[in-house]
Amino acid sequence: MKKLYVIGIGPGGLEHMTIKAKKTIEESDIVVGYTKYLKMVEPLLEGKETYATGMRGEEDRCKKAIELAQDKVVSVISTGDSGIYGMAGLILQLDNNANVEIIPGVTASSSAASVLGAPLMHDNCNISLSDLMTPYEAIKKRVKLAAEGDFVISLYNPRSKGRPQYLKECLDIVREYRDGNTPIGVVRNALRDDQSVHISTLGNFDEEIVDMMSIVVIGNSNTYIENGRIITPRGYKID
Amino acid sequence: MKKLYVIGIGPGGLEHMTIKAKKTIEESDIVVGYTKYLKMVEPLLEGKETYATGMRGEEDRCKKAIELAQDKVVSVISTGDSGIYGMAGLILQLDNNANVEIIPGVTASSSAASVLGAPLMHDNCNISLSDLMTPYEAIKKRVKLAAEGDFVISLYNPRSKGRPQYLKECLDIVREYRDGNTPIGVVRNALRDDQSVHISTLGNFDEEIVDMMSIVVIGNSNTYIENGRIITPRGYKID
Repeated sequence: MKKLYVIGIGPGGLEHMTIKAKKTIEESDIVVGYTKYLKMVEPLLEGKETYATGMRGEEDRCKKAIELAQDKVVSVISTGDSGIYGMAGLILQLDNNANVEIIPGVTASSSAASVLGAPLMHDNCNISLSDLMTPYEAIKKRVKLAAEGDFVISLYNPRSKGRPQYLKECLDIVREYRDGNTPIGVVRNALRDDQSVHISTLGNFDEEIVDMMSIVVIGNSNTYIENGRIITPRGYKID
Repeated sequence: MKKLYVIGIGPGGLEHMTIKAKKTIEESDIVVGYTKYLKMVEPLLEGKETYATGMRGEEDRCKKAIELAQDKVVSVISTGDSGIYGMAGLILQLDNNANVEIIPGVTASSSAASVLGAPLMHDNCNISLSDLMTPYEAIKKRVKLAAEGDFVISLYNPRSKGRPQYLKECLDIVREYRDGNTPIGVVRNALRDDQSVHISTLGNFDEEIVDMMSIVVIGNSNTYIENGRIITPRGYKID
């Protein structure tokens, strides 16, 4: 293999990409990614070869990237951080070559949090509600234990068309441990032009507004809402 | 207030900062931060007013930043993501003003993961072992529940001089749920010039090498070590 970069481009807009991610894409021979993500970095792709696949084509995309990287400098891009539910794992599962380099980015829960205020200031976890490769029972167990542990919880892939009821069922599990006043925030397309933000509480929450482009952040027992922001104090004492 | 930016600069080197973070620092009148962090962004500070404080001076630093931002454009910087154990929370606790803007960065667990391989590809959590503002009993409870839930666990502030035994005690809790072959990675100064990496297993781990500049990442029950990298498969099936 010549060189294969696995790049997290952050939330989407060019400005929240790291300087290293931008420079690496610019210096690559070929850029590989989901069609929509390539569109996000279009200004960097002028005169470059690209290879795009649809949403479910991850494995195909990674295999193609590895094939192309045998004699070219290739970048495969994901949104968010390539190392959190991104392409880094699949690439290394397929070819754990010393010439693969992972370039991290701002993960979706950080982007969503920055828009909501400061919900992730204390111990927190990321849970994906996608059951494509994880049994739903395992997902529910994690939600239960995270709720019991008073973690701030960020839900990725929170509500697909095929399994819209998972979100409500998982929030009902959280409700067993946290009261109705617990803040909950939804950010759709965080830090993109069409961003939308919804702040509510566990007691009043309407799941219908959530889709797969959203991140849902559930506060811990100390989290509060003030001036349209969700804030988790740093510790258990008031500063 | 005129304008106060709360910026996460990522792991430390300028290249892993987002384009927005760099541009915002360059356009600020005053930059506020821990002395060591200001040093990391020194090339951006030429001709700029700065306000530096020592390690424990967070509250002082935030109050000063808020005071200065009354009639200037001020940036207060943290390493990693300003919204995860960074300055965003304390600033908003002190003054939740509409002119405060949070600019996210690459958090320390993402940086460490990129160096280790792809350990965070499945559900994961961040836990700080600092008991400065959280009772140790609450920390241990979280470690236990995260271990029981088979989360990949990233430990922040893992081993201080004042409480070196916490790390071993918390790993002993994890050992009740995961076997001795579970991968564990330590990255000190991730993505900085003096980075060091240590990959081991729960059964063979030597806590002595860990300090406060390190992040400790503990794999889940499917995580494996291969070619000097830690890889967590995306799901529970083998691809």
